[in-house]
Amino acid sequence: MTRIGCLGGGQLGRMLALAGYPMGLSFTFLEPASNSSAGQVGEQLVGPYDDPELLARLGADSDLVTFEFESVPEQSARAILSHSPVFPPPGALLLGQDRLLEKRLFERLGIQAAEFAAVDTLGDLDRAIDQVGLPARLKTRRLGYDGHGQARITEREEAEFAWDKAGGLPSILEREVGFDRELSILGVRSTAGEVALYPLTQNHHQDSILRLSLAPAPGIGSQLQASAEEICRLILEELAYQGVLAVELFQVGERLFANEIAPRVHNSGHWTMNGAATSQFENHLRAGLGWKLGSTAAIGHSAMVNLLGDLPDPARVLAVAGAHLHLYGKSPRPGRKLGHVNLTGADPVAVTAASVEVAEVVGAKLPPPADGNSFWPAPSP
Amino acid sequence: MTRIGCLGGGQLGRMLALAGYPMGLSFTFLEPASNSSAGQVGEQLVGPYDDPELLARLGADSDLVTFEFESVPEQSARAILSHSPVFPPPGALLLGQDRLLEKRLFERLGIQAAEFAAVDTLGDLDRAIDQVGLPARLKTRRLGYDGHGQARITEREEAEFAWDKAGGLPSILEREVGFDRELSILGVRSTAGEVALYPLTQNHHQDSILRLSLAPAPGIGSQLQASAEEICRLILEELAYQGVLAVELFQVGERLFANEIAPRVHNSGHWTMNGAATSQFENHLRAGLGWKLGSTAAIGHSAMVNLLGDLPDPARVLAVAGAHLHLYGKSPRPGRKLGHVNLTGADPVAVTAASVEVAEVVGAKLPPPADGNSFWPAPSP
Repeated sequence: MTRIGCLGGGQLGRMLALAGYPMGLSFTFLEPASNSSAGQVGEQLVGPYDDPELLARLGADSDLVTFEFESVPEQSARAILSHSPVFPPPGALLLGQDRLLEKRLFERLGIQAAEFAAVDTLGDLDRAIDQVGLPARLKTRRLGYDGHGQARITEREEAEFAWDKAGGLPSILEREVGFDRELSILGVRSTAGEVALYPLTQNHHQDSILRLSLAPAPGIGSQLQASAEEICRLILEELAYQGVLAVELFQVGERLFANEIAPRVHNSGHWTMNGAATSQFENHLRAGLGWKLGSTAAIGHSAMVNLLGDLPDPARVLAVAGAHLHLYGKSPRPGRKLGHVNLTGADPVAVTAASVEVAEVVGAKLPPPADGNSFWPAPSP
Repeated sequence: MTRIGCLGGGQLGRMLALAGYPMGLSFTFLEPASNSSAGQVGEQLVGPYDDPELLARLGADSDLVTFEFESVPEQSARAILSHSPVFPPPGALLLGQDRLLEKRLFERLGIQAAEFAAVDTLGDLDRAIDQVGLPARLKTRRLGYDGHGQARITEREEAEFAWDKAGGLPSILEREVGFDRELSILGVRSTAGEVALYPLTQNHHQDSILRLSLAPAPGIGSQLQASAEEICRLILEELAYQGVLAVELFQVGERLFANEIAPRVHNSGHWTMNGAATSQFENHLRAGLGWKLGSTAAIGHSAMVNLLGDLPDPARVLAVAGAHLHLYGKSPRPGRKLGHVNLTGADPVAVTAASVEVAEVVGAKLPPPADGNSFWPAPSP
């Protein structure tokens, strides 16, 4: 039996394990929180991500190690390399953790993205405003500095206030993109070099949390899909990537702007569990093991509604046509991702309507169908 | 969290658990063999199926109990009823365990089946031959008497030999049906009375072990599907059944003969894990919980190849287009069911070809495509 180790024991790890058991894999998770979502369905080492002893043990007890949490320190992933191969390549963690490196990667690969400039001092910020223009957002380079997230700048006079809000930390200034909608593409590259791309997914966030995905994103021409695949493929190849990688995109007219990458299985790919020939979780594992990738083709149409904060009544959720429930074994807490509901069917309008029905059942707020920034599938005339 | 108890800890239990975790269920299995297939992914009570203490514990620790092994004593299932509801109804176990009761059920419901007669003595056998005709098979009523399985009788002179072979045990004589092919239908009925039927599946056995299923069975007209659904529905309603039930059928021209029923999730339904909108395992649980059933519609075409005796190289299996691997965590042993491979795709001819490819990889013997008793999908001209 091939033993998979995993840094992080959240829901992504749990879903990896449930996808991996049928392929004869076993799982051990390193995660500080006991009785974690993944630990409920696999073995768990309880402890911090940077505990040298636990990292050595995870590596020694595993044939192959992956990660499911993008804030895992790159050094932790590297520390395992002396015991076991690790995928995705640990260096990819840095890209997900540092906005400047991420932007420079886009730039180096000729991938269109919002204009940006590095900002290390208030003086830099002043010059950056000249360079990228306004409105723009000042964002700390590193994620996870609570309270020092982002500040929007519309007038030059707001610069100092924004700089204070960023805590004076190394940051970037990013020109605001007036986008039509948010999309994402999931790509997967195996250790054998095989690449497969999923259809574009349309995403709706509120308060920076994903609420709803529609897949395949409605109204996508073959040109736009090809552009997204090209962007994702460039990144996968540049990083000699292994596993699933998500690229968040903005659509502006018929153009795509890269926004962020996530070097792991991704919330916007959860629809693949019921709506694609092969789920992102199965393909992530197949990729790391060097096995042939499964088909990434969509089966009909899908919607995914995140379950945040409260646990729903399963009977009511499953009473909605085409609904499949995915709970993570986590306790309720305001805003916490506790699960998701996938809706599948042959008719995109019916699937979207079902997602609205589920949102009502679970008390989720969805953007209104008439929202100017969303492309809801329109009923055929 | 709803706690499901299960009598039996084989692969069917394992697949129930993997289908149930996403719906927020937990699982405990009662199974004599330690480190069982299901016990590897859930809690296990190790002990015999008729241990009163363990049965009481399973019932007390569960909100709902099911079974995955049809030779579980009916009394064991009934013993749990004082602690927890049990589904399917324990009485259904008797039908799966006694060929005479099964045949009488078909008779009572007006379901066409092979002619039969009960045989308790050698004299009975002589009269039975007059009644049902030859060739016929003498079968012990109860299953599981090793070595006392079946005896084929083509000439009256073979009667005494057959009776000896049956060990003089209560038996039935069953007229042999010259069938065109073997089919099965899976039905599911919920505690709320909702019924759903899967498309007919074509099955190929060798040495009484299922080797290959094709689904939906090729060349099935709506009439034949409707007849199969009617048969299954009659049985589900008669038994006030809850959960998944399989009916094995013989096709003779455009007529169906009921052969056997299995009051549980069934090997011939394993294709539903990748080839139907909702797997038989998910629907079995939804049925027992009284939740709305998921769609039983097929997604494209599927084939299922059983893995018997030897563990295959996963990389080679998954190199076949449309292949999904399902291993049960069991050690190799000649003839033992260790897993199965599902093949899915839009083109039935390609899917069948893929199943032949997998059979070659895993060393499985499939019936030749030109076999007079099989309906292989023909390439379109």
